[in-house]
Amino acid sequence: MRYTHNYNPSISDDEIFLNILEEKEDIGYYNLVFQEISFYQEYAKTVKQKHIVVVGIGGSTLGTYAIYKFLKHSKELEKRLFFLETTDPIDIQSKLENVDLEDALFIVISKSGTTVETIAIFKYLHTLVKIDKTNCVVVTEDDSKLNSYAQQHEIKRFTIPKNVGGRFSVFSAVGLLPLSIVGINIESLLQGAKSIHDGFFYDKNGTRERLLKKARFFTEYKNRFNINVIFSYSSRLEGFNKWYIQLWGESLGKVDINNTRQGLTPIGIIGPIDQHSFLQLIVEGRRDKTVTVVKVENFDNDLKIPAVELEGLEELNYLNDRKFSDLINMQADATIEAINNLGDIPCDVITIDGVCESAIASLMYEYELLTSLCAKFMYIDAYNQPGVEGGKIILKEKLKIIQ
Amino acid sequence: MRYTHNYNPSISDDEIFLNILEEKEDIGYYNLVFQEISFYQEYAKTVKQKHIVVVGIGGSTLGTYAIYKFLKHSKELEKRLFFLETTDPIDIQSKLENVDLEDALFIVISKSGTTVETIAIFKYLHTLVKIDKTNCVVVTEDDSKLNSYAQQHEIKRFTIPKNVGGRFSVFSAVGLLPLSIVGINIESLLQGAKSIHDGFFYDKNGTRERLLKKARFFTEYKNRFNINVIFSYSSRLEGFNKWYIQLWGESLGKVDINNTRQGLTPIGIIGPIDQHSFLQLIVEGRRDKTVTVVKVENFDNDLKIPAVELEGLEELNYLNDRKFSDLINMQADATIEAINNLGDIPCDVITIDGVCESAIASLMYEYELLTSLCAKFMYIDAYNQPGVEGGKIILKEKLKIIQ
Repeated sequence: MRYTHNYNPSISDDEIFLNILEEKEDIGYYNLVFQEISFYQEYAKTVKQKHIVVVGIGGSTLGTYAIYKFLKHSKELEKRLFFLETTDPIDIQSKLENVDLEDALFIVISKSGTTVETIAIFKYLHTLVKIDKTNCVVVTEDDSKLNSYAQQHEIKRFTIPKNVGGRFSVFSAVGLLPLSIVGINIESLLQGAKSIHDGFFYDKNGTRERLLKKARFFTEYKNRFNINVIFSYSSRLEGFNKWYIQLWGESLGKVDINNTRQGLTPIGIIGPIDQHSFLQLIVEGRRDKTVTVVKVENFDNDLKIPAVELEGLEELNYLNDRKFSDLINMQADATIEAINNLGDIPCDVITIDGVCESAIASLMYEYELLTSLCAKFMYIDAYNQPGVEGGKIILKEKLKIIQ
Repeated sequence: MRYTHNYNPSISDDEIFLNILEEKEDIGYYNLVFQEISFYQEYAKTVKQKHIVVVGIGGSTLGTYAIYKFLKHSKELEKRLFFLETTDPIDIQSKLENVDLEDALFIVISKSGTTVETIAIFKYLHTLVKIDKTNCVVVTEDDSKLNSYAQQHEIKRFTIPKNVGGRFSVFSAVGLLPLSIVGINIESLLQGAKSIHDGFFYDKNGTRERLLKKARFFTEYKNRFNINVIFSYSSRLEGFNKWYIQLWGESLGKVDINNTRQGLTPIGIIGPIDQHSFLQLIVEGRRDKTVTVVKVENFDNDLKIPAVELEGLEELNYLNDRKFSDLINMQADATIEAINNLGDIPCDVITIDGVCESAIASLMYEYELLTSLCAKFMYIDAYNQPGVEGGKIILKEKLKIIQ
C-alpha cells in the first residue's frame, strides 16, 4: 500500500500562529504598538481649547470613549471630551448644551470620509460656530473626500491607515489624538498594548497559550455556547463593554467559506448592578453562555463604608469599615464562585492591574488579538462588514427619492 | 368504544388570558394603573431640594432611570435626578461631585430593606451630610428593617406592596415618587400604562391579540430564536433598553416545571450607533435572533442639517435641509427594510407616539404584559429570582469571615 495526502488541518496552535504572523503583514492594527506618537503629543501641546468634541460614530468613537470613560475620574484632566455620535436630535442638542463652542476643538473622524451621521453633524456645527483651521482637525484616510475638504481649508489632518479597520483603530490617530489632547498618557497606553503584543508574538508570560486556548474553546464550542458574556465589575468599564460588543459582533458575525453563518453573540454587563438583572438568566437559563468576569485589582481608592449604626439594620454591620473597592471585588468573587459551583458554565476571570492607561490598553489589545484568533479558527474575515451595506444603500435611495 | 380525557392544553389564547386574569388577583403590578397617586403629588409639592438622589439598585432604579433618561431633555425640569446604584467607589464619588449635598433629598429604595449595595451607600452618605427627616425618605416594604429604621427617625415612608416585584415596580412608589418630585407628569404616565392595560384586558385596539401573538411566537420558537434584540432608534431609549434587559432576563431565565432550563436572552442596542456595531452580526450571523425595532414617531424637534456646502463632500448634499428626526427615522426604516429583505429574520416594529410620558409608559407596560405572557406560555414563574441567591449567600459568608 502506498499513501499520499494533503491533510494538513490548519488547526494546530502553530499553524494558527503562523496564519496570524502572515496576516500581521497586511492587517495594520497589530503593529500600531510600534508607531511614532510624538506628533500626536506635539499637536496636543498646541491645543488651547478646553472642550474637545469628537464627531464620529462606531469605530471612530467607541474605543476612545472606552478609555476616556475608564480613566476620566481617576486623572486630573484639564480638558473634557465630548462625543457627537448619533443623528438623534435630542442627543445632539443635550450634549452641545455642555460645550463652550467658543472654546471647543472639533475632531471630525471618519475612515471613509463620507459617513452619513458624521457629515450631517459636521454640517450642523457650521450653523453654530465658524469652523476653520483654528478649531477643527480631521482624522480620515489619506485619499478620502473629507481629507480633500480639509486640505482645501488648510485644516490639520491625521491619517487612519487603509489597513486599520475602524473597530481596530483605537490605537491609531482615531484614539490617540483625542486622548492625548485631553491629557491621557498615550505612551502608557501603547506600552500596555505592547505588553500583550509581545506576550503573544514573542511568547512571554503565557500570553500566547492563554489566547490560543480561549479562542479555540470559543470556536470549538461555538454551537453550544453561542453567547459570550463579559461581566465587568466596575462602572468605569461600561465603555469597554460597548467597544467589545462592536469588535466581537461586527468581526465574527460572518458567513464562512462554506457559506455557513458564523457568529458569537457578545453581551456586556456591569457588576454588581447586573447581579440584580442578567445574572438570574446566566444561573438558571439555558447553558448557551460563557462568562468572562473582568475585575480591577487595585481601584486606588479608599472610599469606605463607615461604622455607622442604623437602628433596625444592625444585621448589615458586617459592612462597616470596609472599603467599597474591597466590597465590589468580593461581590465579583462571590459571583464567580456561585457560577463555578454550578459546574456547567464556562467561566474565566481577567484581573486588570488598576485604573490606569496600561491596564485598559492591555485589556483592549488582548481582545483585539482574541477576535483575530477566533476569526482564524472560524475561517472568516474579521476585518470586513459586508452585512451593513444593504441598509446603507436603501437609506441612500430613500434620501435621494424623498427630497 | 368509550373515551374520556383530561387533555386540556392550556395553550389556547383564551386559556392563557384566563390564567393572566387569575394571576392578576395576586400579582400586584397589573393593577398599579388604578392606584391613587395624589399623595405622591402632594409630597412632591413639599420638596424644596433641587437635587434628588435615588439610592437603590436593580429594580429600584432601572425603571425610573428609563423614564427620566427618555424625558429629561424634552421637559423643563426644575430638579435633577441622580442614581447611586453601585458599589464602585469611583462611580459613587464622581456622581456625588455633581450633587449639592446641602440641597439634596435622598430617596432610599429597597424592597427587602436590606439590600447590601443600598445600605452600604446609605451608611456612607451619613459621613457627608446629616441625614434626617428633612432630607431623606424611604421606599420599602411595610415590615422591612429599613422601614423600622425610618419609623424610629420619623423619616417619611412610602410602601412597595409585597406583591409587586422589584423589576415590575416602576409604576409604584419606586418610580412615581422620584419622577413626580422632579416634575414628570405621573398622571400621564399612568394613563399611558392604562391604555395598554385596557387594550389588553378589555380587548381594545387589537392589543390583546398583538401581545398574545408575539408571546406565542417568542415561546414557540424559543429554541430556534433564543435571542431577542430590541433595536431602539433614539439614544433617549438607552435606559429603556437596560430596564428591558432586567425584566426579560430575570423574569424568563428560569427552570420550568419539567426541570428544563428556559430563558430568552435579551439584547438592547441603539440606532443608528449600533448599525456600526451589532447589525453586522444580525445580518450575517446565525439565525437565532428576533429583532424588535422601536421608533419614535414624533421627536417634536426641528433640528436641521443646513444646506452647507463642504467642498469635496458634495455627494452628501442630499442630506441638506433635512430634519435630524426625519433622518434617524429613515435610518430605522432602511434597517427594517434591509432585515426584511433577508426574509429569514423575525422582525417587528413598535412606533411610539413621541417623547412624552404616556408613550414611554405604554411601551413599558406593554413589555411587562409581554413578559408575563411569555412566562405563562413557558410554565415558569416570572416573579421570583432564585438564581441570584447563591451569590448573595457566598458574599455574606465572605463578609462575615473576612473581618
